[in-house]
Amino acid sequence: MLKTPPSPVMTKEEVEAFLEREFPQMHHGGQSCFIEEIGPHSARMRMAYQERHLRPGGTISGPAMMALADYVLYAAILGSLGPIALAVTTNLSFNFLRKPLQRDLMAKCRLLKVGRRLVMGEVAIVSEGSADIVCHATGTYALP
Amino acid sequence: MLKTPPSPVMTKEEVEAFLEREFPQMHHGGQSCFIEEIGPHSARMRMAYQERHLRPGGTISGPAMMALADYVLYAAILGSLGPIALAVTTNLSFNFLRKPLQRDLMAKCRLLKVGRRLVMGEVAIVSEGSADIVCHATGTYALP
Amino acid sequence: MLKTPPSPVMTKEEVEAFLEREFPQMHHGGQSCFIEEIGPHSARMRMAYQERHLRPGGTISGPAMMALADYVLYAAILGSLGPIALAVTTNLSFNFLRKPLQRDLMAKCRLLKVGRRLVMGEVAIVSEGSADIVCHATGTYALP
Amino acid sequence: MLKTPPSPVMTKEEVEAFLEREFPQMHHGGQSCFIEEIGPHSARMRMAYQERHLRPGGTISGPAMMALADYVLYAAILGSLGPIALAVTTNLSFNFLRKPLQRDLMAKCRLLKVGRRLVMGEVAIVSEGSADIVCHATGTYALP
Repeated sequence: MLKTPPSPVMTKEEVEAFLEREFPQMHHGGQSCFIEEIGPHSARMRMAYQERHLRPGGTISGPAMMALADYVLYAAILGSLGPIALAVTTNLSFNFLRKPLQRDLMAKCRLLKVGRRLVMGEVAIVSEGSADIVCHATGTYALP
Repeated sequence: MLKTPPSPVMTKEEVEAFLEREFPQMHHGGQSCFIEEIGPHSARMRMAYQERHLRPGGTISGPAMMALADYVLYAAILGSLGPIALAVTTNLSFNFLRKPLQRDLMAKCRLLKVGRRLVMGEVAIVSEGSADIVCHATGTYALP
Repeated sequence: MLKTPPSPVMTKEEVEAFLEREFPQMHHGGQSCFIEEIGPHSARMRMAYQERHLRPGGTISGPAMMALADYVLYAAILGSLGPIALAVTTNLSFNFLRKPLQRDLMAKCRLLKVGRRLVMGEVAIVSEGSADIVCHATGTYALP
Repeated sequence: MLKTPPSPVMTKEEVEAFLEREFPQMHHGGQSCFIEEIGPHSARMRMAYQERHLRPGGTISGPAMMALADYVLYAAILGSLGPIALAVTTNLSFNFLRKPLQRDLMAKCRLLKVGRRLVMGEVAIVSEGSADIVCHATGTYALP
């Protein structure tokens, strides 16, 4: 009954090279997001704990987590569909569940639908080494 | 690293009895949603394929799936926290991914945060016997 | 600077006739939603206060309000684009803000984007005669 | 029937001073968001068009708009409730409707519910001088 999603069509290195070429502004201020894995309809990304993402008390800001979620979703789409520069986010919804710890964040994305016109996925973000979800996101990209 | 959520504090039969007593209107027009399982921070529910839930072509309506998602989320909260009649939904977000098949729907809810004031969970709805998610939902309840 | 949206292409009566023909199941158990107005990229709908929509204490259920929001959004799309039977909801998000009063609900929909492939709108639901929003929704329909 | 929301309890200058003191990291890389107005249950904010917010083609990135929406919502809450450092975002939902123009963005926030425990508002973002909404957001903050 459970179908295995198809293998990715781009490797981690190919997705990285594509993003660096097409979205150089992502690394404005220094790179902070790093792809850890591109899998079948999935991706994992690390966000380094850096001063510019912080809020008072050392907690990582909501906008930094939102950028991470959007980015890992795009990486999963690239891995699944190949180099599509013109996919655009149409919808993103976030639930902020807990304060992140003072360490790197790990984001895991799973695509729930890969259609011809729309791709929808969910993202769970945890502090490294913890199982508690600090931010859960769902998002949709429209394909050109 | 992975924590197992605590066991439920109400059985399936206790949750059913509570819902029938507190929400008799749910079964207006005949009962169509049936709890299949109450688990640790989780619940599963079946919605019978019935004419009143249909749209042209025999597809199950969006509102019927939204009611099912809200209901299974509430059942999971009851199972995890006990009989709380005054929990109220504050937010529900739905992504409709595929046309449901002409058969029963199965909804699985997993609570991602059980706090003192807010409980948040996600729901995946599939047609019975299929692994494809037809509707994905996230929702938050505020506790009294 | 402010652009007036184009006039509707279907009248209230035409939208009503279309919905009755295409979605007869909507009135299963007796009609409860009534179009009040079709305007430029907008629509207004009334939901009659009826026993089957109620929760304990006489409050109108979340699912009844979700069905109303989905319906008024579809009516606004029909009014703006003409008789499109195959438009499908892809996303709906709800915030439940207050307990509705024990009277009819009024839903007002405004389309924020009418594109070739996606239409997005927002819905505010109030109890008749009150200005307090009881439920706010946003939703997207994909066009065939 | 229409109730006017109460006047703000903090001025624009007081909200600015509070934010600069409590959230100095916001201006990491140079300030780009500027409060234009604090009104009754509302706020307006400008985001300057800057290279670091851009995507290929000169379009402003989704994450930059998400940060702006979160920020103007928080400014509206401060204006309405006074200096609450510990309000936390629990939910944010975004619809991206059009490509922003190559100029400043203007964000307008309106609070739809100001409760004792939860505040919910909506945000519309337009390119300066245009009436077309490029991004629509809804969000909820939990009060301490």
